[in-house]
Amino acid sequence: MHPDRLFPADPAARELARSLHALVEHAPVVSPHSHVDALMLADDRPFANPAELLVTPDHYVTRLLHASGVPLDELAGDPRAAWRLLARYWSRFRGTPVRYWLEFQLTQVFGVPQQLDEASADAIYDRIDALLATPAYRPRALFERFGIDVLATTDDPADDLAAHRRLAADHAFPGRVLPTFRADRYMDPSASGWAAALDELATAAAVDCGTHEGLLEALRIRRAYFRAQGGTATDSGVPDAWASPIDARDAERIHAAGLAGSVSPADAVAYRRDLLYRLIEMSVDDGMVMQLHPGVIRNHHRPTLLRHGPDSGHDLPGVAAFTDPLRRALNDFGTDPRLRLVLFTVDETAFSREIAPLAGFYPTVFIGAPWWFLDAPSAIERFRHAVTETAGFEKTSGFIDDTRAFCSIPARHDMSRRTDAAYLASLVVAHRLSESDAAALALDLVARIPYETFRIEPPAPPVHEAAPVRTGAMLEEVSCAPSS
Amino acid sequence: MHPDRLFPADPAARELARSLHALVEHAPVVSPHSHVDALMLADDRPFANPAELLVTPDHYVTRLLHASGVPLDELAGDPRAAWRLLARYWSRFRGTPVRYWLEFQLTQVFGVPQQLDEASADAIYDRIDALLATPAYRPRALFERFGIDVLATTDDPADDLAAHRRLAADHAFPGRVLPTFRADRYMDPSASGWAAALDELATAAAVDCGTHEGLLEALRIRRAYFRAQGGTATDSGVPDAWASPIDARDAERIHAAGLAGSVSPADAVAYRRDLLYRLIEMSVDDGMVMQLHPGVIRNHHRPTLLRHGPDSGHDLPGVAAFTDPLRRALNDFGTDPRLRLVLFTVDETAFSREIAPLAGFYPTVFIGAPWWFLDAPSAIERFRHAVTETAGFEKTSGFIDDTRAFCSIPARHDMSRRTDAAYLASLVVAHRLSESDAAALALDLVARIPYETFRIEPPAPPVHEAAPVRTGAMLEEVSCAPSS
Amino acid sequence: MHPDRLFPADPAARELARSLHALVEHAPVVSPHSHVDALMLADDRPFANPAELLVTPDHYVTRLLHASGVPLDELAGDPRAAWRLLARYWSRFRGTPVRYWLEFQLTQVFGVPQQLDEASADAIYDRIDALLATPAYRPRALFERFGIDVLATTDDPADDLAAHRRLAADHAFPGRVLPTFRADRYMDPSASGWAAALDELATAAAVDCGTHEGLLEALRIRRAYFRAQGGTATDSGVPDAWASPIDARDAERIHAAGLAGSVSPADAVAYRRDLLYRLIEMSVDDGMVMQLHPGVIRNHHRPTLLRHGPDSGHDLPGVAAFTDPLRRALNDFGTDPRLRLVLFTVDETAFSREIAPLAGFYPTVFIGAPWWFLDAPSAIERFRHAVTETAGFEKTSGFIDDTRAFCSIPARHDMSRRTDAAYLASLVVAHRLSESDAAALALDLVARIPYETFRIEPPAPPVHEAAPVRTGAMLEEVSCAPSS
Repeated sequence: MHPDRLFPADPAARELARSLHALVEHAPVVSPHSHVDALMLADDRPFANPAELLVTPDHYVTRLLHASGVPLDELAGDPRAAWRLLARYWSRFRGTPVRYWLEFQLTQVFGVPQQLDEASADAIYDRIDALLATPAYRPRALFERFGIDVLATTDDPADDLAAHRRLAADHAFPGRVLPTFRADRYMDPSASGWAAALDELATAAAVDCGTHEGLLEALRIRRAYFRAQGGTATDSGVPDAWASPIDARDAERIHAAGLAGSVSPADAVAYRRDLLYRLIEMSVDDGMVMQLHPGVIRNHHRPTLLRHGPDSGHDLPGVAAFTDPLRRALNDFGTDPRLRLVLFTVDETAFSREIAPLAGFYPTVFIGAPWWFLDAPSAIERFRHAVTETAGFEKTSGFIDDTRAFCSIPARHDMSRRTDAAYLASLVVAHRLSESDAAALALDLVARIPYETFRIEPPAPPVHEAAPVRTGAMLEEVSCAPSS
Repeated sequence: MHPDRLFPADPAARELARSLHALVEHAPVVSPHSHVDALMLADDRPFANPAELLVTPDHYVTRLLHASGVPLDELAGDPRAAWRLLARYWSRFRGTPVRYWLEFQLTQVFGVPQQLDEASADAIYDRIDALLATPAYRPRALFERFGIDVLATTDDPADDLAAHRRLAADHAFPGRVLPTFRADRYMDPSASGWAAALDELATAAAVDCGTHEGLLEALRIRRAYFRAQGGTATDSGVPDAWASPIDARDAERIHAAGLAGSVSPADAVAYRRDLLYRLIEMSVDDGMVMQLHPGVIRNHHRPTLLRHGPDSGHDLPGVAAFTDPLRRALNDFGTDPRLRLVLFTVDETAFSREIAPLAGFYPTVFIGAPWWFLDAPSAIERFRHAVTETAGFEKTSGFIDDTRAFCSIPARHDMSRRTDAAYLASLVVAHRLSESDAAALALDLVARIPYETFRIEPPAPPVHEAAPVRTGAMLEEVSCAPSS
Repeated sequence: MHPDRLFPADPAARELARSLHALVEHAPVVSPHSHVDALMLADDRPFANPAELLVTPDHYVTRLLHASGVPLDELAGDPRAAWRLLARYWSRFRGTPVRYWLEFQLTQVFGVPQQLDEASADAIYDRIDALLATPAYRPRALFERFGIDVLATTDDPADDLAAHRRLAADHAFPGRVLPTFRADRYMDPSASGWAAALDELATAAAVDCGTHEGLLEALRIRRAYFRAQGGTATDSGVPDAWASPIDARDAERIHAAGLAGSVSPADAVAYRRDLLYRLIEMSVDDGMVMQLHPGVIRNHHRPTLLRHGPDSGHDLPGVAAFTDPLRRALNDFGTDPRLRLVLFTVDETAFSREIAPLAGFYPTVFIGAPWWFLDAPSAIERFRHAVTETAGFEKTSGFIDDTRAFCSIPARHDMSRRTDAAYLASLVVAHRLSESDAAALALDLVARIPYETFRIEPPAPPVHEAAPVRTGAMLEEVSCAPSS
């Protein structure tokens, strides 16, 4: 990895980007939105093998292999075979962030000295496989090496958060692993698993969820439970951002129809949009930061869903809308200081047209970092250009990695820090920002804004003084590790 | 303010941008679309205080303060307190054009030597306050110092344009202040103020507006009146761009229902879309340039509307559409040389998809400059990239500042001239444009195209020879003014 | 034409772009999607005059003249008068790709030594006119000089492809001219020419097209005929991308209504969307690469259509959608290796939101090159940035010129190769791509990917070794040609 990667081409801007990046290069990682499994950290079992760590569970990787003609079945079997397929199709990833992240992991996390190709695939596999058997490559050791201060997971309201509690109780573990309350399973009364989910929730909350009012009460109880375990935020991944209250009697009627399996599509939508409004109400009441990730068309390819389940690479972006859908809720709660809404989009036209203008007026609205398909250097650069002029930097959320791929966390945060340094440098070179403001912002974006946005306690003492050298030193640490 | 601000980073491109900018740096300002009050210039009373000049009436400023958690109420009281709030939240504006414009005004217009912060806020306030009491900071003196040749205001058809007439009759006042005919109040028969507005218009035009035909006749009479006062253009700020004629009897029926307070929402929309078509017809007849600013969702936050009125920072961009909505009107009048339509958008996806393709075929269609949320360096750069390849430069309108903030006029035109110089330089460096063409275009965009687009008489003698040094010399002039 | 045109400003990136471009500068041209007339090549008659070659049939040129106030009637008469109009309005083309292409043709193809303006117009006209009378400027000679290896035309299924057969049979003609199957005329049973088109098709296929089943059978027969003449691809230019099967009885009912002239608008749409689905089915069966060009609003200005016919410059982009419209077809055939769908858009928001995400999962989906309004340097750069991070390079189609203007082929491919070299160089300079990967990709994008995407046999021997020096040497060859 070149030390100047992702920096501007212009020498003056590059020099400046280097300085700005140096300020945050070793700052602790705060990951307020991830899909890492807390149990993995609680158990601290070794990772199974290179393919299960780096390839098969990461739909960013598998979708591009699939797009190249590799059936997902071929990735599901022998891990070494899956790894060889990655190597065989490695050229397909040229220019993509997936390749950038994987190269970072290979070189910075595993100290792999050679390029990945079909000839080197086995040797690299063996090297990583051997490292994974060592204590230094257990989840907790990597967590520390990655310099993670806070990691927020994504959890169902019925989850007992046992893993989170074990981690919190373990004083040998220095990081913070916070749960995030994600109630998606309860939103659609026409979904096949809805009634069963209600049962689980009822058990967890000790409240009958046979009524809509019962569901709301159970959700409130579980939110309190999540907060007690350190949770500061919720997340909602909904088909659209409409939040529209309906009459309580209508909600009860649809709830009952859902339990009877006879809910109409229109009623199911009305129920879901009402429930989103109720979740916003709850956030007003309890101050949990509400992340909203609407507009993804899930499971576009039904044969793949049936064979490989959800999250298998065929979720696709839809057309985004926020300004109209959230109008009612923002009229009711948009200036209430207890509420905080962080809006994410996979349709980048919404950044300049909807999200930044909303965040530039409503104190409750924050601009979610570029997410999923947009979590890449060029897209991040477009994002900054699209929102800064309307809403500045302080209403942006700070980077979220949104990842299931544990070892990609440092790679993604490295990418984000470099991309922001490059953007700030470009503003300075055009005299749109002073050098001192740029330096302050570089730090703010990494060490202050993510904590504030997500209402997470900042680390003490001040981040940019106390932070030990982490990601930058990984390679050296790694080179002392046993190699294959 | 750095002399190279907004220029490209690459040294060769920067040098070229400098040369191109030097050609237009001191050219007179033509502002064919503003919200400056003509009465302010006619009366020439001193500005009240720094906050009322620079902060409170400017929704670009107040919306970002509001987004940062400052209730609008806190800005509405003591002006010094409002100023201190600006200083306190000054860091929130980092990277925004609002900060760029304000820094320009502080340094170039008021010669403020220090940075704005909480410590310096009072001293800066006092300095500006003292300057505002001097003759050099009266509206007319600033108008001359800003080098404004033409300023078009925005006016209701019922307005008697007394201030415009006083200015035109005053030979000591060298500028031109032209009215713009904006009939928005008459478009929606379901709006609460509609009947009262008709009464005012009836009085002004001496025509009964109790019928739709009467309204059309009154509008025609007032357009003639505006033209007689030098007006060359109209403006329409409509929810959407649909211009669809309906039967005269239907129009009369809806008109009557509007007066009776019983118009249906669908009828109100049909009436408005018909009236937009009638306004296009009138422009064909009388040659007034028709500006169309559709697609803004007005007054998104009703509590703020009720407390602070319109234009208080919560108008938001909607999804733009032009190609379908204007099809009927363009089929009827799209090649008529009397018509001129200037299309503006706050949804930038429309630039490459709709506005530039329309302007690249229809001789009547012009591309409005980036407006409102898009009136900023990066957005302007995207705009040029989005439209030039399809429609060139000559079908773009020239810069409009669209401002209520009088002292921001030189700041905004400075920004525009620099941004265009940077874009032209980037084309030259890529050998997509010759240096001589770039130089000609830099001048055209400032000194010819805005006059031609808006059918305003150009100044005599030729602009780029006769123009006295203005904006660039402001700081020196200011440094001779009494300081606090 | 400057040798560094379209390359990045930064010296290091420029140097790299030069090297990358040098790899492909002289590679043969593959043009898998054009509107060149095969008969022109078969007959090899001299071009009539400069205006008919360069101005009047090219709606890219005429639309900008029309937008500048030139009635299309004025271009339709005396060719020299049309040429003078081009010269007179030449400044209107500053900064557009149309000017870039024309300047390329004037200097590189015709060796014109002076700038085009009103004074030089006649001399340049005379020079080109004289050259067109020479053997070196006959269509076939230019075909060879342009280094065209493969040219795919666009043809109606009823076309007998006689010109293609003559070219294929003529061993003195070294190029390949392949037909493309475009069944647009048969899609809309409410269109006035539909029944007549069916008659032609019935004759060509020797199948009665009085039934829907007959139409499908005739299309299959003609597809086989096209394949036998070397055709590898089809094209569909439809109002939208919906591909939705309907019941065969409904299709027959609507077919009959179409023949009776009594089809309803809704039925016509359902029929067309079903037929698109059937064409996809046929591509699954016969492996013809299916190009889909939806979302163009045709003939926006009816008076111009009536007077000047279709393709007269007032087709306009509509809002694009692919993800929902193609869902059914992709669920049925999206992983079938026989199918290949190449998706084109004139609404560039679809690149990052729909096309790249689809191509990043479905092995059957390819990303069509920027097309029509987007076929220009800045738009191509935006395209690469929009799709690469999600789908890499290998799922992009390679450049298509889509042109009716024969002499613009080398200009357009030159532009594409330079723009891609610039983009690749920018990735290398930011250390997002290695130099060797960039070099491999530069070659792949020109010499491998277009062949693979369109299932065209690659030339033998390997492209980058055997290619003679072509476009770069044109000017020298031209300077030996008789000058005016």
